[in-house]
Amino acid sequence: MSFRIDIISLLPTLIESPFNASILKRAQQKDLVEINIHDLREYGQGKHKQVDDYAFGGGAGMVMLAQPIFECIEKLKKERVYDAIVYTTPDGARFNQKMANKLSLLNNVIILCGHYKGIDQRVRESLITHEISIGDYVLSGGEIAAAVISDAIVRLIPGVLNDGSSALTDSFQDDLLAPPIYTRPANFKGMKVPEILLSGDSKRIDEWRNEQAIEITRSRRPDLFS
Amino acid sequence: MSFRIDIISLLPTLIESPFNASILKRAQQKDLVEINIHDLREYGQGKHKQVDDYAFGGGAGMVMLAQPIFECIEKLKKERVYDAIVYTTPDGARFNQKMANKLSLLNNVIILCGHYKGIDQRVRESLITHEISIGDYVLSGGEIAAAVISDAIVRLIPGVLNDGSSALTDSFQDDLLAPPIYTRPANFKGMKVPEILLSGDSKRIDEWRNEQAIEITRSRRPDLFS
Repeated sequence: MSFRIDIISLLPTLIESPFNASILKRAQQKDLVEINIHDLREYGQGKHKQVDDYAFGGGAGMVMLAQPIFECIEKLKKERVYDAIVYTTPDGARFNQKMANKLSLLNNVIILCGHYKGIDQRVRESLITHEISIGDYVLSGGEIAAAVISDAIVRLIPGVLNDGSSALTDSFQDDLLAPPIYTRPANFKGMKVPEILLSGDSKRIDEWRNEQAIEITRSRRPDLFS
Repeated sequence: MSFRIDIISLLPTLIESPFNASILKRAQQKDLVEINIHDLREYGQGKHKQVDDYAFGGGAGMVMLAQPIFECIEKLKKERVYDAIVYTTPDGARFNQKMANKLSLLNNVIILCGHYKGIDQRVRESLITHEISIGDYVLSGGEIAAAVISDAIVRLIPGVLNDGSSALTDSFQDDLLAPPIYTRPANFKGMKVPEILLSGDSKRIDEWRNEQAIEITRSRRPDLFS
Protein backbone atom coordinates (compact mmCIF):
# COMPACT_ATOMS: atom_id res chain seq x y z
CA MET A 1 0.00 0.00 0.00
CA SER A 2 1.36 3.36 -0.92
CA PHE A 3 1.52 6.49 1.16
CA ARG A 4 -0.98 9.18 0.20
CA ILE A 5 -0.70 12.90 0.86
CA ASP A 6 -3.56 15.30 0.05
CA ILE A 7 -2.49 18.92 0.12
CA ILE A 8 -5.17 21.60 0.32
CA SER A 9 -4.02 25.00 -0.85
CA LEU A 10 -5.18 28.35 -2.17
CA LEU A 11 -2.07 28.51 -4.36
CA PRO A 12 -1.56 25.03 -5.76
CA THR A 13 0.82 26.24 -8.46
CA LEU A 14 3.21 27.49 -5.78
CA ILE A 15 4.33 24.00 -4.86
CA GLU A 16 4.12 22.24 -8.20
CA SER A 17 7.85 22.19 -8.82
CA PRO A 18 9.07 20.67 -5.53
CA PHE A 19 6.70 17.75 -6.11
CA ASN A 20 7.79 17.33 -9.72
CA ALA A 21 11.52 17.05 -9.11
CA SER A 22 14.06 14.96 -7.34
CA ILE A 23 13.02 12.52 -4.64
CA LEU A 24 9.35 13.49 -4.43
CA LYS A 25 9.00 12.90 -8.17
CA ARG A 26 10.81 9.56 -8.11
CA ALA A 27 8.78 8.34 -5.15
CA GLN A 28 5.58 9.05 -7.10
CA GLN A 29 6.90 7.40 -10.26
CA LYS A 30 7.75 4.29 -8.26
CA ASP A 31 4.15 4.31 -6.88
CA LEU A 32 5.50 4.53 -3.34
CA VAL A 33 3.70 7.80 -2.74
CA GLU A 34 0.62 9.45 -4.18
CA ILE A 35 0.47 13.21 -3.81
CA ASN A 36 -2.66 15.18 -4.69
CA ILE A 37 -2.90 18.93 -4.56
CA HIS A 38 -6.41 20.34 -4.15
CA ASP A 39 -7.31 23.90 -5.07
CA LEU A 40 -9.30 25.25 -2.13
CA ARG A 41 -10.78 27.98 -4.32
CA GLU A 42 -12.94 25.37 -6.03
CA TYR A 43 -14.76 25.10 -2.71
CA GLY A 44 -15.13 28.89 -2.36
CA GLN A 45 -18.49 30.49 -1.57
CA GLY A 46 -20.82 32.15 -4.05
CA LYS A 47 -20.13 33.13 -7.60
CA HIS A 48 -16.87 34.84 -6.64
CA LYS A 49 -15.66 31.65 -4.95
CA GLN A 50 -14.90 33.57 -1.80
CA VAL A 51 -12.35 31.86 0.45
CA ASP A 52 -11.51 34.55 3.02
CA ASP A 53 -13.02 37.45 4.93
CA TYR A 54 -12.09 40.10 7.50
CA ALA A 55 -11.31 39.06 11.06
CA PHE A 56 -14.00 39.51 13.71
CA GLY A 57 -12.78 42.18 16.08
CA GLY A 58 -10.79 43.99 13.41
CA GLY A 59 -7.09 44.04 12.62
CA ALA A 60 -4.85 43.66 9.57
CA GLY A 61 -4.94 40.58 7.38
CA MET A 62 -7.63 38.24 6.08
CA VAL A 63 -8.86 35.00 7.64
CA MET A 64 -9.62 31.83 5.68
CA LEU A 65 -13.30 30.87 5.85
CA ALA A 66 -14.32 27.67 7.63
CA GLN A 67 -16.92 26.53 5.08
CA PRO A 68 -14.70 25.83 2.04
CA ILE A 69 -12.19 23.95 4.20
CA PHE A 70 -14.94 21.85 5.77
CA GLU A 71 -16.37 20.98 2.37
CA CYS A 72 -13.01 19.96 0.94
CA ILE A 73 -11.98 17.86 3.94
CA GLU A 74 -15.42 16.26 4.34
CA LYS A 75 -15.32 15.24 0.68
CA LEU A 76 -11.88 13.63 1.10
CA LYS A 77 -12.94 11.87 4.31
CA LYS A 78 -15.84 10.24 2.48
CA GLU A 79 -13.34 8.67 0.07
CA ARG A 80 -10.94 7.13 2.62
CA VAL A 81 -9.88 7.13 6.25
CA TYR A 82 -7.24 9.72 7.13
CA ASP A 83 -4.68 9.05 9.85
CA ALA A 84 -3.74 12.70 10.23
CA ILE A 85 -5.14 16.07 9.20
CA VAL A 86 -2.24 18.48 9.48
CA TYR A 87 -2.45 22.26 9.58
CA THR A 88 0.79 24.17 9.02
CA THR A 89 0.97 27.12 11.41
CA PRO A 90 3.75 28.96 13.27
CA ASP A 91 2.08 28.22 16.63
CA GLY A 92 1.90 24.47 16.05
CA ALA A 93 4.15 21.79 17.52
CA ARG A 94 7.63 22.16 16.12
CA PHE A 95 8.32 19.68 13.35
CA ASN A 96 11.35 17.48 13.95
CA GLN A 97 12.88 14.25 12.74
CA LYS A 98 11.01 12.12 15.27
CA MET A 99 7.72 13.55 14.05
CA ALA A 100 8.78 12.88 10.44
CA ASN A 101 9.62 9.27 11.36
CA LYS A 102 6.22 8.83 13.00
CA LEU A 103 4.23 10.40 10.17
CA SER A 104 6.09 8.25 7.61
CA LEU A 105 4.45 5.17 9.17
CA LEU A 106 0.92 6.39 8.35
CA ASN A 107 -1.04 5.80 5.15
CA ASN A 108 -3.28 8.78 4.42
CA VAL A 109 -2.41 12.31 5.43
CA ILE A 110 -4.06 15.64 4.64
CA ILE A 111 -1.97 18.80 4.86
CA LEU A 112 -3.95 22.04 4.95
CA CYS A 113 -1.88 25.08 4.01
CA GLY A 114 -2.68 28.24 5.90
CA HIS A 115 -2.61 31.61 4.15
CA TYR A 116 -3.08 35.27 5.01
CA LYS A 117 -3.51 35.55 8.79
CA GLY A 118 -4.53 31.90 9.01
CA ILE A 119 -7.71 29.85 9.18
CA ASP A 120 -10.84 30.32 11.26
CA GLN A 121 -10.16 28.92 14.74
CA ARG A 122 -13.21 26.66 14.53
CA VAL A 123 -11.56 24.59 11.78
CA ARG A 124 -8.56 24.06 14.03
CA GLU A 125 -10.71 22.96 16.93
CA SER A 126 -13.01 20.59 15.07
CA LEU A 127 -11.11 19.12 12.10
CA ILE A 128 -7.35 19.36 12.56
CA THR A 129 -5.54 16.49 14.29
CA HIS A 130 -1.95 17.82 14.06
CA GLU A 131 -0.90 21.48 14.15
CA ILE A 132 2.68 21.63 12.94
CA SER A 133 5.20 24.45 12.68
CA ILE A 134 8.34 23.91 10.61
CA GLY A 135 10.16 26.58 12.64
CA ASP A 136 9.98 29.85 14.57
CA TYR A 137 9.43 32.13 11.61
CA VAL A 138 6.55 33.36 9.52
CA LEU A 139 6.10 32.47 5.85
CA SER A 140 3.71 34.07 3.38
CA GLY A 141 1.81 30.78 3.24
CA GLY A 142 1.77 27.20 4.39
CA GLU A 143 2.59 25.78 0.96
CA ILE A 144 6.36 25.75 1.41
CA ALA A 145 5.85 24.29 4.88
CA ALA A 146 3.74 21.51 3.33
CA ALA A 147 6.57 20.83 0.87
CA VAL A 148 9.06 20.65 3.77
CA ILE A 149 6.90 18.19 5.72
CA SER A 150 6.17 16.07 2.63
CA ASP A 151 9.82 15.90 1.64
CA ALA A 152 11.02 15.00 5.14
CA ILE A 153 8.42 12.22 5.38
CA VAL A 154 8.65 10.80 1.86
CA ARG A 155 12.40 10.27 1.93
CA LEU A 156 11.95 7.98 4.95
CA ILE A 157 9.51 5.65 3.20
CA PRO A 158 11.28 2.36 2.40
CA GLY A 159 12.41 2.21 -1.23
CA VAL A 160 12.38 5.96 -1.85
CA LEU A 161 16.09 6.59 -1.29
CA ASN A 162 18.32 4.38 -3.41
CA ASP A 163 20.67 3.64 -0.57
CA GLY A 164 18.84 2.20 2.41
CA SER A 165 21.50 3.21 4.90
CA SER A 166 21.72 6.79 3.74
CA ALA A 167 18.81 8.23 5.75
CA LEU A 168 19.94 6.47 8.92
CA THR A 169 23.27 8.33 9.00
CA ASP A 170 21.60 11.74 8.65
CA SER A 171 21.70 14.41 11.32
CA PHE A 172 19.16 13.90 14.15
CA GLN A 173 18.49 10.18 13.57
CA ASP A 174 20.75 9.44 16.54
CA ASP A 175 20.24 12.83 18.23
CA LEU A 176 23.65 13.93 16.95
CA LEU A 177 24.60 16.37 14.23
CA ALA A 178 26.56 14.85 11.36
CA PRO A 179 30.41 14.91 11.40
CA PRO A 180 32.33 16.89 8.73
CA ILE A 181 32.56 15.28 5.30
CA TYR A 182 35.19 15.60 2.59
CA THR A 183 35.68 14.40 -0.94
CA ARG A 184 38.45 14.65 -3.53
CA PRO A 185 40.92 16.23 -3.90
CA ALA A 186 42.76 15.49 -0.64
CA ASN A 187 44.44 18.88 -0.99
CA PHE A 188 42.25 21.70 -2.26
CA LYS A 189 43.84 25.15 -2.46
CA GLY A 190 46.15 24.12 0.39
CA MET A 191 43.28 22.93 2.59
CA LYS A 192 43.81 19.30 3.51
CA VAL A 193 41.47 16.48 4.41
CA PRO A 194 42.07 15.16 7.96
CA GLU A 195 44.73 12.39 7.77
CA ILE A 196 42.54 9.88 9.57
CA LEU A 197 40.00 9.83 6.71
CA LEU A 198 42.75 8.74 4.28
CA SER A 199 44.02 5.98 6.60
CA GLY A 200 41.73 3.21 5.40
CA ASP A 201 41.27 2.17 9.02
CA SER A 202 37.51 2.03 9.17
CA LYS A 203 37.34 1.37 12.91
CA ARG A 204 39.37 4.49 13.73
CA ILE A 205 37.44 6.48 11.12
CA ASP A 206 34.15 5.50 12.78
CA GLU A 207 35.56 6.52 16.16
CA TRP A 208 36.75 9.87 14.79
CA ARG A 209 33.38 10.56 13.16
CA ASN A 210 31.55 9.75 16.35
CA GLU A 211 33.86 12.01 18.39
CA GLN A 212 33.38 14.82 15.85
CA ALA A 213 29.60 14.38 15.88
CA ILE A 214 29.53 14.58 19.68
CA GLU A 215 31.85 17.60 19.73
CA ILE A 216 29.87 19.49 17.06
CA THR A 217 26.58 18.71 18.77
CA ARG A 218 27.98 19.82 22.14
CA SER A 219 29.22 23.13 20.78
CA ARG A 220 26.37 23.93 18.38
CA ARG A 221 23.31 22.28 19.90
CA PRO A 222 23.84 21.27 23.53
CA ASP A 223 20.04 21.09 23.88
CA LEU A 224 20.00 17.88 21.82
CA PHE A 225 21.74 16.07 24.70
CA SER A 226 19.17 17.00 27.31
CA MET B 1 18.26 49.74 -4.06
CA SER B 2 16.65 46.36 -4.32
CA PHE B 3 17.41 43.22 -2.38
CA ARG B 4 19.24 40.53 -4.34
CA ILE B 5 19.27 36.81 -3.64
CA ASP B 6 21.49 34.42 -5.62
CA ILE B 7 20.56 30.79 -5.09
CA ILE B 8 23.07 28.11 -6.08
CA SER B 9 21.52 24.72 -6.67
CA LEU B 10 21.99 21.38 -8.37
CA LEU B 11 18.24 21.21 -9.00
CA PRO B 12 17.18 24.70 -10.04
CA THR B 13 13.85 23.48 -11.44
CA LEU B 14 12.86 22.22 -8.00
CA ILE B 15 12.27 25.71 -6.68
CA GLU B 16 11.00 27.47 -9.77
CA SER B 17 7.37 27.52 -8.69
CA PRO B 18 7.71 29.04 -5.20
CA PHE B 19 9.59 31.96 -6.75
CA ASN B 20 7.03 32.39 -9.52
CA ALA B 21 3.96 32.66 -7.35
CA SER B 22 2.41 34.76 -4.65
CA ILE B 23 4.54 37.18 -2.67
CA LEU B 24 7.93 36.22 -4.08
CA LYS B 25 6.62 36.81 -7.59
CA ARG B 26 5.01 40.15 -6.76
CA ALA B 27 8.13 41.35 -4.96
CA GLN B 28 10.16 40.66 -8.10
CA GLN B 29 7.60 42.30 -10.36
CA LYS B 30 7.72 45.42 -8.18
CA ASP B 31 11.54 45.40 -8.49
CA LEU B 32 11.86 45.19 -4.73
CA VAL B 33 13.74 41.92 -4.98
CA GLU B 34 15.89 40.27 -7.61
CA ILE B 35 16.19 36.51 -7.35
CA ASN B 36 18.63 34.56 -9.50
CA ILE B 37 18.89 30.79 -9.49
CA HIS B 38 22.24 29.39 -10.65
CA ASP B 39 22.65 25.84 -11.89
CA LEU B 40 25.72 24.48 -10.11
CA ARG B 41 26.11 21.76 -12.72
CA GLU B 42 27.30 24.38 -15.20
CA TYR B 43 30.38 24.63 -12.99
CA GLY B 44 30.89 20.84 -12.84
CA GLN B 45 34.27 19.24 -13.59
CA GLY B 46 35.27 17.59 -16.85
CA LYS B 47 33.11 16.64 -19.77
CA HIS B 48 30.58 14.90 -17.48
CA LYS B 49 30.24 18.10 -15.44
CA GLN B 50 30.91 16.18 -12.26
CA VAL B 51 29.59 17.87 -9.13
CA ASP B 52 29.95 15.18 -6.46
CA ASP B 53 32.14 12.27 -5.40
CA TYR B 54 32.41 9.62 -2.70
CA ALA B 55 33.26 10.64 0.86
CA PHE B 56 36.83 10.19 2.07
CA GLY B 57 36.77 7.51 4.74
CA GLY B 58 33.80 5.71 3.17
CA GLY B 59 30.12 5.62 4.06
CA ALA B 60 26.81 6.03 2.30
CA GLY B 61 25.92 9.11 0.27
CA MET B 62 27.78 11.46 -2.03
CA VAL B 63 29.58 14.71 -1.16
CA MET B 64 29.40 17.89 -3.24
CA LEU B 65 32.80 18.85 -4.68
CA ALA B 66 34.48 22.06 -3.50
CA GLN B 67 35.72 23.21 -6.91
CA PRO B 68 32.38 23.92 -8.69
CA ILE B 69 31.06 25.77 -5.65
CA PHE B 70 34.22 27.87 -5.41
CA GLU B 71 34.04 28.75 -9.09
CA CYS B 72 30.40 29.78 -8.93
CA ILE B 73 30.76 31.85 -5.77
CA GLU B 74 34.04 33.47 -6.90
CA LYS B 75 32.36 34.51 -10.15
CA LEU B 76 29.45 36.10 -8.27
CA LYS B 77 31.80 37.83 -5.83
CA LYS B 78 33.60 39.49 -8.74
CA GLU B 79 30.31 41.07 -9.81
CA ARG B 80 29.25 42.56 -6.47
CA VAL B 81 29.87 42.56 -2.74
CA TYR B 82 27.87 39.96 -0.82
CA ASP B 83 26.75 40.64 2.74
CA ALA B 84 26.07 36.99 3.50
CA ILE B 85 26.88 33.62 1.94
CA VAL B 86 24.40 31.22 3.44
CA TYR B 87 24.63 27.43 3.43
CA THR B 88 21.47 25.52 4.31
CA THR B 89 22.34 22.56 6.53
CA PRO B 90 20.63 20.71 9.41
CA ASP B 91 23.59 21.43 11.72
CA GLY B 92 23.51 25.19 11.12
CA ALA B 93 22.12 27.86 13.45
CA ARG B 94 18.37 27.51 13.69
CA PHE B 95 16.55 29.99 11.50
CA ASN B 96 14.07 32.16 13.36
CA GLN B 97 12.18 35.41 12.94
CA LYS B 98 14.97 37.54 14.42
CA MET B 99 17.40 36.10 11.89
CA ALA B 100 14.88 36.80 9.10
CA ASN B 101 14.52 40.40 10.30
CA LYS B 102 18.31 40.83 10.31
CA LEU B 103 18.86 39.27 6.89
CA SER B 104 16.09 41.43 5.41
CA LEU B 105 18.24 44.51 6.09
CA LEU B 106 21.06 43.30 3.84
CA ASN B 107 21.43 43.90 0.10
CA ASN B 108 23.13 40.93 -1.54
CA VAL B 109 22.79 37.40 -0.25
CA ILE B 110 23.94 34.07 -1.69
CA ILE B 111 22.14 30.90 -0.61
CA LEU B 112 23.98 27.68 -1.40
CA CYS B 113 21.71 24.63 -1.37
CA GLY B 114 23.25 21.46 -0.02
CA HIS B 115 22.43 18.11 -1.59
CA TYR B 116 23.21 14.44 -1.04
CA LYS B 117 25.25 14.13 2.18
CA GLY B 118 26.25 17.80 1.98
CA ILE B 119 29.20 19.85 0.75
CA ASP B 120 32.92 19.37 1.28
CA GLN B 121 33.80 20.77 4.71
CA ARG B 122 36.46 23.06 3.21
CA VAL B 123 33.79 25.12 1.45
CA ARG B 124 32.06 25.63 4.79
CA GLU B 125 35.25 26.72 6.48
CA SER B 126 36.50 29.11 3.81
CA LEU B 127 33.51 30.59 1.96
CA ILE B 128 30.33 30.33 4.00
CA THR B 129 29.45 33.18 6.36
CA HIS B 130 26.10 31.86 7.70
CA GLU B 131 25.21 28.20 8.22
CA ILE B 132 21.46 28.05 8.68
CA SER B 133 19.08 25.22 9.51
CA ILE B 134 15.35 25.76 9.00
CA GLY B 135 14.59 23.08 11.63
CA ASP B 136 15.59 19.81 13.28
CA TYR B 137 14.79 17.54 10.38
CA VAL B 138 16.48 16.33 7.22
CA LEU B 139 15.31 17.22 3.73
CA SER B 140 16.39 15.65 0.48
CA GLY B 141 18.04 18.91 -0.48
CA GLY B 142 18.59 22.50 0.54
CA GLU B 143 16.34 23.92 -2.18
CA ILE B 144 13.14 23.94 -0.14
CA ALA B 145 15.12 25.40 2.77
CA ALA B 146 16.34 28.19 0.47
CA ALA B 147 12.73 28.87 -0.51
CA VAL B 148 11.74 29.04 3.17
CA ILE B 149 14.53 31.49 4.00
CA SER B 150 13.85 33.64 0.92
CA ASP B 151 10.13 33.80 1.60
CA ALA B 152 10.57 34.69 5.28
CA ILE B 153 13.02 37.47 4.36
CA VAL B 154 11.30 38.90 1.31
CA ARG B 155 7.92 39.42 3.00
CA LEU B 156 9.65 41.70 5.52
CA ILE B 157 11.08 44.04 2.90
CA PRO B 158 9.14 47.33 2.95
CA GLY B 159 6.55 47.50 0.16
CA VAL B 160 6.31 43.74 -0.40
CA LEU B 161 3.21 43.12 1.70
CA ASN B 162 0.28 45.33 0.77
CA ASP B 163 -0.61 46.07 4.35
CA GLY B 164 2.35 47.47 6.23
CA SER B 165 1.09 46.48 9.63
CA SER B 166 0.36 42.91 8.67
CA ALA B 167 3.82 41.45 9.23
CA LEU B 168 4.20 43.20 12.57
CA THR B 169 1.23 41.37 14.09
CA ASP B 170 2.55 37.93 13.05
CA SER B 171 3.62 35.26 15.49
CA PHE B 172 7.13 35.76 16.94
CA GLN B 173 7.49 39.47 16.15
CA ASP B 174 6.76 40.20 19.81
CA ASP B 175 7.95 36.81 21.09
CA LEU B 176 4.33 35.72 21.40
CA LEU B 177 2.28 33.30 19.34
CA ALA B 178 -0.73 34.82 17.62
CA PRO B 179 -4.18 34.77 19.31
CA PRO B 180 -7.08 32.78 17.75
CA ILE B 181 -8.77 34.41 14.76
CA TYR B 182 -12.30 34.11 13.46
CA THR B 183 -14.26 35.32 10.47
CA ARG B 184 -17.87 35.08 9.34
CA PRO B 185 -20.29 33.50 10.07
CA ALA B 186 -20.53 34.22 13.80
CA ASN B 187 -22.18 30.84 14.22
CA PHE B 188 -20.77 28.02 12.11
CA LYS B 189 -22.31 24.58 12.61
CA GLY B 190 -23.16 25.59 16.18
CA MET B 191 -19.61 26.78 16.91
CA LYS B 192 -19.69 30.41 18.00
CA VAL B 193 -17.17 33.22 17.80
CA PRO B 194 -16.17 34.53 21.28
CA GLU B 195 -18.63 37.29 22.27
CA ILE B 196 -15.89 39.81 22.93
CA LEU B 197 -14.84 39.86 19.25
CA LEU B 198 -18.36 40.95 18.27
CA SER B 199 -18.50 43.69 20.91
CA GLY B 200 -16.95 46.48 18.84
CA ASP B 201 -14.97 47.52 21.93
CA SER B 202 -11.51 47.68 20.43
CA LYS B 203 -9.73 48.29 23.73
CA ARG B 204 -11.21 45.19 25.33
CA ILE B 205 -10.61 43.21 22.14
CA ASP B 206 -6.93 44.17 22.22
CA GLU B 207 -6.71 43.13 25.86
CA TRP B 208 -8.40 39.81 25.13
CA ARG B 209 -6.08 39.11 22.20
CA ASN B 210 -3.05 39.90 24.29
CA GLU B 211 -4.24 37.63 27.10
CA GLN B 212 -4.92 34.84 24.61
CA ALA B 213 -1.50 35.28 23.02
CA ILE B 214 0.21 35.05 26.41
CA GLU B 215 -1.87 32.03 27.44
CA ILE B 216 -1.25 30.17 24.17
CA THR B 217 2.45 30.93 24.29
CA ARG B 218 2.66 29.79 27.92
CA SER B 219 0.93 26.49 27.21
CA ARG B 220 2.47 25.71 23.83
CA ARG B 221 5.87 27.34 23.86
CA PRO B 222 6.97 28.35 27.36
CA ASP B 223 10.55 28.51 26.03
CA LEU B 224 9.71 31.75 24.19
CA PHE B 225 9.39 33.53 27.54
CA SER B 226 12.86 32.56 28.77
